[in-house]
Amino acid sequence: MSAMSMSHLVEAIADLGRSYLEGPLNRSLLRNIENLCQSLREEKGEAAATAIAREVVNAFNAMRREEKLEFLEMLQNDFSPNPEAVLIAAKSYVRNGDIRSLRNLAQAVESPVQAFLRLLNMVPGGTETIIAMRNLVLEEIKNKPQLEFLDADFEHLLASWFNRGFLTFQRIDWNTPAVILEKLMQHEAVHEIKGWEDLRRRLADDRRCFAFFHPVLPNEPIIFIEVALTKGIAREIQPVLEMPPQHQKKDPADTAIFYSISNCQSGLKGIHFGSFLIKQVVDTISAELPKIKTYSTLSPIPGFRNWLEKVFLLKKSNELTEDELKILKEPLWFNSESNLEDLKGTLTKLCAQYLVNEKKNHRPRDPVARFHLGNGAEIEQINWLGDTSRRGMEQSAGLMVNYLYNTSHIVANHENYVNDGKIAVSSKIKKLLS
Amino acid sequence: MSAMSMSHLVEAIADLGRSYLEGPLNRSLLRNIENLCQSLREEKGEAAATAIAREVVNAFNAMRREEKLEFLEMLQNDFSPNPEAVLIAAKSYVRNGDIRSLRNLAQAVESPVQAFLRLLNMVPGGTETIIAMRNLVLEEIKNKPQLEFLDADFEHLLASWFNRGFLTFQRIDWNTPAVILEKLMQHEAVHEIKGWEDLRRRLADDRRCFAFFHPVLPNEPIIFIEVALTKGIAREIQPVLEMPPQHQKKDPADTAIFYSISNCQSGLKGIHFGSFLIKQVVDTISAELPKIKTYSTLSPIPGFRNWLEKVFLLKKSNELTEDELKILKEPLWFNSESNLEDLKGTLTKLCAQYLVNEKKNHRPRDPVARFHLGNGAEIEQINWLGDTSRRGMEQSAGLMVNYLYNTSHIVANHENYVNDGKIAVSSKIKKLLS
Amino acid sequence: MSAMSMSHLVEAIADLGRSYLEGPLNRSLLRNIENLCQSLREEKGEAAATAIAREVVNAFNAMRREEKLEFLEMLQNDFSPNPEAVLIAAKSYVRNGDIRSLRNLAQAVESPVQAFLRLLNMVPGGTETIIAMRNLVLEEIKNKPQLEFLDADFEHLLASWFNRGFLTFQRIDWNTPAVILEKLMQHEAVHEIKGWEDLRRRLADDRRCFAFFHPVLPNEPIIFIEVALTKGIAREIQPVLEMPPQHQKKDPADTAIFYSISNCQSGLKGIHFGSFLIKQVVDTISAELPKIKTYSTLSPIPGFRNWLEKVFLLKKSNELTEDELKILKEPLWFNSESNLEDLKGTLTKLCAQYLVNEKKNHRPRDPVARFHLGNGAEIEQINWLGDTSRRGMEQSAGLMVNYLYNTSHIVANHENYVNDGKIAVSSKIKKLLS
Amino acid sequence: MSAMSMSHLVEAIADLGRSYLEGPLNRSLLRNIENLCQSLREEKGEAAATAIAREVVNAFNAMRREEKLEFLEMLQNDFSPNPEAVLIAAKSYVRNGDIRSLRNLAQAVESPVQAFLRLLNMVPGGTETIIAMRNLVLEEIKNKPQLEFLDADFEHLLASWFNRGFLTFQRIDWNTPAVILEKLMQHEAVHEIKGWEDLRRRLADDRRCFAFFHPVLPNEPIIFIEVALTKGIAREIQPVLEMPPQHQKKDPADTAIFYSISNCQSGLKGIHFGSFLIKQVVDTISAELPKIKTYSTLSPIPGFRNWLEKVFLLKKSNELTEDELKILKEPLWFNSESNLEDLKGTLTKLCAQYLVNEKKNHRPRDPVARFHLGNGAEIEQINWLGDTSRRGMEQSAGLMVNYLYNTSHIVANHENYVNDGKIAVSSKIKKLLS
Repeated sequence: MSAMSMSHLVEAIADLGRSYLEGPLNRSLLRNIENLCQSLREEKGEAAATAIAREVVNAFNAMRREEKLEFLEMLQNDFSPNPEAVLIAAKSYVRNGDIRSLRNLAQAVESPVQAFLRLLNMVPGGTETIIAMRNLVLEEIKNKPQLEFLDADFEHLLASWFNRGFLTFQRIDWNTPAVILEKLMQHEAVHEIKGWEDLRRRLADDRRCFAFFHPVLPNEPIIFIEVALTKGIAREIQPVLEMPPQHQKKDPADTAIFYSISNCQSGLKGIHFGSFLIKQVVDTISAELPKIKTYSTLSPIPGFRNWLEKVFLLKKSNELTEDELKILKEPLWFNSESNLEDLKGTLTKLCAQYLVNEKKNHRPRDPVARFHLGNGAEIEQINWLGDTSRRGMEQSAGLMVNYLYNTSHIVANHENYVNDGKIAVSSKIKKLLS
Repeated sequence: MSAMSMSHLVEAIADLGRSYLEGPLNRSLLRNIENLCQSLREEKGEAAATAIAREVVNAFNAMRREEKLEFLEMLQNDFSPNPEAVLIAAKSYVRNGDIRSLRNLAQAVESPVQAFLRLLNMVPGGTETIIAMRNLVLEEIKNKPQLEFLDADFEHLLASWFNRGFLTFQRIDWNTPAVILEKLMQHEAVHEIKGWEDLRRRLADDRRCFAFFHPVLPNEPIIFIEVALTKGIAREIQPVLEMPPQHQKKDPADTAIFYSISNCQSGLKGIHFGSFLIKQVVDTISAELPKIKTYSTLSPIPGFRNWLEKVFLLKKSNELTEDELKILKEPLWFNSESNLEDLKGTLTKLCAQYLVNEKKNHRPRDPVARFHLGNGAEIEQINWLGDTSRRGMEQSAGLMVNYLYNTSHIVANHENYVNDGKIAVSSKIKKLLS
Repeated sequence: MSAMSMSHLVEAIADLGRSYLEGPLNRSLLRNIENLCQSLREEKGEAAATAIAREVVNAFNAMRREEKLEFLEMLQNDFSPNPEAVLIAAKSYVRNGDIRSLRNLAQAVESPVQAFLRLLNMVPGGTETIIAMRNLVLEEIKNKPQLEFLDADFEHLLASWFNRGFLTFQRIDWNTPAVILEKLMQHEAVHEIKGWEDLRRRLADDRRCFAFFHPVLPNEPIIFIEVALTKGIAREIQPVLEMPPQHQKKDPADTAIFYSISNCQSGLKGIHFGSFLIKQVVDTISAELPKIKTYSTLSPIPGFRNWLEKVFLLKKSNELTEDELKILKEPLWFNSESNLEDLKGTLTKLCAQYLVNEKKNHRPRDPVARFHLGNGAEIEQINWLGDTSRRGMEQSAGLMVNYLYNTSHIVANHENYVNDGKIAVSSKIKKLLS
Repeated sequence: MSAMSMSHLVEAIADLGRSYLEGPLNRSLLRNIENLCQSLREEKGEAAATAIAREVVNAFNAMRREEKLEFLEMLQNDFSPNPEAVLIAAKSYVRNGDIRSLRNLAQAVESPVQAFLRLLNMVPGGTETIIAMRNLVLEEIKNKPQLEFLDADFEHLLASWFNRGFLTFQRIDWNTPAVILEKLMQHEAVHEIKGWEDLRRRLADDRRCFAFFHPVLPNEPIIFIEVALTKGIAREIQPVLEMPPQHQKKDPADTAIFYSISNCQSGLKGIHFGSFLIKQVVDTISAELPKIKTYSTLSPIPGFRNWLEKVFLLKKSNELTEDELKILKEPLWFNSESNLEDLKGTLTKLCAQYLVNEKKNHRPRDPVARFHLGNGAEIEQINWLGDTSRRGMEQSAGLMVNYLYNTSHIVANHENYVNDGKIAVSSKIKKLLS
């Protein structure tokens, strides 16, 4: 494409973009964007490239969903490595096997999508747009598995850009701007925040909330964690959520309970922030509040209830009777005193088995367990009727678990887990399993 | 390496690191670091990986130069792609040519150095250390050309991380912290800043100074530019540097003169910031001072004097006499009235030829010309005795040039230059060339 | 009081203070505080004085209301000028009439309360405590008119400290910390903010909100104003409060409507911030949005309905019939079409008379009119059914008024008003009055 | 003055003001300003008042010194209380003696200068201008003692505005903006800062520097203190100023030495900040560096040398021989070994006497001693040849003194000093005195 026709094209697209909000699916615009993206690939100079990148970003954000999907398909198809060039380079490497042909091969196989995305990132709003693009890729990947390769390019780039070293760690409290606070309410994934009053309670003096941010998205938390400062390890979630703020001066807390951790950017799926966040929180609270000696989660066991039913059907366990399983189907069974004693022993034991012994690819089947054990935590105790909310009953049969972050065991636990798949448990849990 | 021996090793190295400042070149330490780096490659969990990364960063920073060089060689040797794996993947691609084998090939050829550097970046001081490592690579590359491949990995990663979209643009003035101001004095590459008083004058009300920063290095400017606000286009640098601050209210400036632009991070060589910076400066000054209508550089012609001598030796020009060339060798020839008239016409003409017609790879031979013309500027005029400093006489025979940034021509100039190698010149320059 | 007994006393009170939260009204503590305050008067050194001041501030904040009232009475009684010293100084001045005896007299009459309050202000939380003290004085002044003199000391000092030159002007929007935003909801005095969603709408892109702050109270707005950016002068408040945010790009606003202004600190009563705030808002919006050409309020007429009834009773007007007055007593009379035409002409005319001709001490009887006319605004138009909320109907009979801030008339309007009591009105209003 | 003529006058003066920079002493302008100031006194509305105040501030700042002095005289003469009104109020008080007549009297005697200055303070730059006015008053007060009364008004107001509660406490280091750092160099009053390198050393890791600021003057330190962190109490100033930064990790400091404290605003003379600053510094360092256990000054004895000569002349001491006094007149006497032993005992003893026993109004004659002892410090030791700089030799005969701030004695020392004039001394000093 010649220079003049290109700058002409930029203008034409800018014009089209302006009339975009109301128009029907605009095939000629999409063709133009494709041409534009092609010209970006060929462009040698930064000035024109960023002008084009700006148009692409604006056009994408103004598109309807079906247009965006066409755009992504175009990326997938047109911005893959040139097969002939790869073939030549591969053959050359097979023949020569030297470092120069290795380099040529490396260049030939690098997906042009990445260079394209780096260009888009240069213009205002570029990073957000790239994250939104990936979000769409992830939503569509079930229907179109071939997007897996496009997704890999997005993930590779975003993982590099959202490297821990570039994130800032910030406390969230009532002094935080409202524009950030409302994101917490939107993205809380474990225990719903029921409006501003509820949020305010979670940010009171006996609570802590921290988040990672990326400098380019100052109003968008990446991930956040909610912590309760308590006397002893909290075993039930409802009091944590509902009790009024405690006067710390009278009866100072000795324990930090991590009771919720939520990712905010679905477009960053697969990039791990959680273990860094927990580590930083432990360091920060230790420095601020030396009296806090214990760090523990209060966690759901989201796969437990499903597993229970399956276990019974498969007769893999003879510990759960048909009657007991029936009881669990009554939504408020925990209100009936007679049921409780019968079930407590059985379910607690089964839960310990589920957490410790039920595996998939040598790792615990339960996702929350997988996360905390992978971080070096250990299973401290299982809490009967720890979460009697509807969701708690449905997913975890009302049980909760404390994963303990014991700073002097974390590294060893982590290595045992990572290398040998060994799971650290307290003596209480051992007893349940024996 | 087993998990236990690894954490043992981390500790051992941490101990060694502490005694590092005074010790002799410590081969066993280097071996340990190598093992550590190997274990990083194999490590699956983040907790241990960052602990190791922290030790590597600390150890590297405590090393002596020769140790650092050994470390880099180790990186070069041990962290290159596995040749056998590449061979298998290349053959598979040649055989199948499908997208899956393409992906496998892409993974096989990606240099493990990049993954390693991304790990180092996670710990405090990581980014600085990586930049320092690359700086060393660049210093050694002349002696050891094979470092070219290691350098390519560094550059690829740093270019992605220091993408324009992640940089912040900041005005530098007398309200700027001293820790940043002293960096300007250190890194000014065009017209030396002779201490705090000189710096202060360059930050006065009739001047502007701007820089790019990266959020992870808040006290380290990446690149900065110095601008003088003047009445008309300034043709000589000494008055710009020396005249006292002008009262803007009485005789408001209509021109912004870019008289110095300097990179501060030699470890980021090859990553282009200059054109983005100039564009942002034009936008910022336009918004602040709508009376500024002209944007121009006042630039040296650093290759001119050398070229003159070569031209004469090669008899490529019959315009310069032997006598004239002799005169140029007297350091203060410009003080002698008799010389001036003889030389002015000849040198100015030759300079225009040099800037416009002397090329290398289809681009102007003069590096400063290459930079500004590549950004879309045009050659406005050549200034006789524009810089009579010692350096100005030695490099540019006292001449300076104004490159004009005419916002309505920049894109077209840029495209003509990039696509066709065409150089935009004013009518004055055209006359000199005819 | 000797030095030792004093520091002993400080400690004793600190001890008492700690046990204060639960205790009964503690007369001996009050006595001790009195002694402490006395010793503050006599104290020559700053170190001890601030230690004592700290105790007084803490003790006051821990007191119950009745104790605080006793404390204020003590201030009133014990910290007044010494009558004998004043008498001697007054006599001396009568005799000599020179500047030295004038100074002595000035010193003798200055209330020691002011020196005492300046001391309290030195310690953390001092300013808030002083404002809280004055708030209490104002609440009690109806019951105890003698507090007028104590109040005058508070007001004098606070007016000096909250001088416009010390206030900062800040925009409030969705980026503002929640701790400040909730203060807006608390203190909005004109049109209630019904929760966070309502607040958010008032801070949207087609709205502006600004406040004055004092540096020592960074989370406490002193006064704030809410502005709607509209096309033309808004005549009804309900659409302003309820319509969804307008896309400014499509149909840019040309008018700024000040629809609410609220003081937040009742302890600063009598210190005028409103006119400074409006002036600053006009300057700020003009600079940001040059397309805004008209600045107007949309204001209630809070005294109108009461006046109407009085007028009828006194038969001062023959324009309102008994029937009409009766109609106004039906809460939703404005829903009945038949009523409207009858009333519109009558009430609008009467309202114009009320605003322009009804005076008290040569100033308009209506407080909102007094405020805006005193700032140099003019009465632009009266809006029939401008506010049909319950409060709007009860206070203003549903009418609203636009006071226009015409920057080229403000100074002249202001001076005419201040010096001659003249009220600036538009030709529309003149016609209503004729 | 009528309203119209007043706004006319504002404009006229604004015009004059603009032509002010070059003009001769402009008597008619001064007359106009007087009229303006008069009209301010009579003005009831804020809008016009601030417009006038703005003109007065601008006009004053554009005046030449002699004009400013005339302006101040005008303030002194025209803005004093109305003698007749005061007389009537004084007589009424003598007659009635009630609280109402007391208040009337208080109003009659309040100097209108204060209301005038509060008005000036409302406009941008007002506070700086008022401080500059007072500075001028202080410079002139020796020539015109009657300015004492005007000065009292300034001091009263400024003391209220610069109340400790309104000051912010900030650390100064190499991250501080240059515009503030250069103020340190300007205002350092004890040990001259010899340029940016010297300054930088004083802000290194083994030093601390803190200042008070007022929010309205963010770039103007009010007072600052320089602290050296040392091992043991430093006894000589030259090593403190000259030794390179110490690695704190190897040999952590246990002592904070206050070696310089300087006021920056001569217009705030008589308002005490020093004791608050020292208290805050002790608190801040204690929190940051718990290993620092000792807080001490290293101070000059600026009146000692003068006193020595006087003592000898008056034959009040028989301890100093004529020969010894003669020696002190040789500038570099301390280089001569033979002199030293003779003098050391004599001078150290005399110095202890000077510090402890030489009084004026029951307070130590030495101003530095007066300051630190008044803050609750105690005299720890006298250091022979503690300061061999020219100034040190001339003022203090080379001696320095450590005043110790022992936190557990400060309050008692302070009270003993304030109430009984008792001076706290160490046992070493006691021995010298016995």
